[in-house]
Amino acid sequence: PVRSAKDQAVRIPPPLFAVVSNGVYRSGYPRERSFSFLKALKLKTCVYLGLHKVIPELKTFIDQEKITLYQIPIEGNKEPFIKIPEDKIIEALRYVLDTKNHPLLVFCEAGAHRTGALMGCVRKLQQWSLTCIFDEYRRFARDQIIRLLDMQFIDLFDLDFEDIWNDRTDL
Amino acid sequence: PVRSAKDQAVRIPPPLFAVVSNGVYRSGYPRERSFSFLKALKLKTCVYLGLHKVIPELKTFIDQEKITLYQIPIEGNKEPFIKIPEDKIIEALRYVLDTKNHPLLVFCEAGAHRTGALMGCVRKLQQWSLTCIFDEYRRFARDQIIRLLDMQFIDLFDLDFEDIWNDRTDL
Repeated sequence: PVRSAKDQAVRIPPPLFAVVSNGVYRSGYPRERSFSFLKALKLKTCVYLGLHKVIPELKTFIDQEKITLYQIPIEGNKEPFIKIPEDKIIEALRYVLDTKNHPLLVFCEAGAHRTGALMGCVRKLQQWSLTCIFDEYRRFARDQIIRLLDMQFIDLFDLDFEDIWNDRTDL
Repeated sequence: PVRSAKDQAVRIPPPLFAVVSNGVYRSGYPRERSFSFLKALKLKTCVYLGLHKVIPELKTFIDQEKITLYQIPIEGNKEPFIKIPEDKIIEALRYVLDTKNHPLLVFCEAGAHRTGALMGCVRKLQQWSLTCIFDEYRRFARDQIIRLLDMQFIDLFDLDFEDIWNDRTDL
């Protein structure tokens, strides 16, 4: 689209927003200031990795934009008792990998740890080497805390491609 | 594509590899270990922001894959005498914004500063707020040095959209 110099409204991506792959985005929790930015992405799906009810302003936006929201209740890795459940990550992966759901945004609260663990698994399915996966994880987690448990989760995550990859997967 | 569990070759993205936008990638200097990864991206264009002759292994790969290479000789910002020339960045932007050239990879040496400055200008054209642009810049520069001159360059970069945006631009 041709834009004119007048169309100068500033767009505010949600915190830690990034493009993961064609049609897949990640970020921290989107607030109202980012809605015009998100609108331009024409999202079909949001995947929220968190325990809380989505706040009303976001719920309204999601309804208005006819976005399908999948909430996958995951608590972040916290030593020594809380750990990310693998079955929930697999559930989330199925949504992420299915291009029927694209464009799709994954978010949690900070956008670093749960989202980072999930994206680490996406990269693993994309066959990235662990060094590169961890380097990406660290880039996003660095302003918070780098959680070894997240990295261990990614490291040990080992799903047969057949189980989750399908003919709609194109990452 | 359906992948089988046997197709387990590890892929090694170049350092600081990331998806900038649909069809636009950024990274540090690609070496041989990343060629199979890059091959899968089906690149049409590479834009190298650097002064040196491209090393033979990369030149061979680029020729084999029939990738068009544009070299834009830019030296990184170094206080107090070297600064990124705006006309070179605009030249690079024209390649990046033109979807005829996609999929396209921009790289420099580390993939943090010159590439980061250019990508900051891309984000500016995408109307991202400066806070968000700088946050992204810092994520990539952090293992090196965060160069205020790069951030100032992005800050002061102010091109009319008409000059550079065209009907093939779709970022």
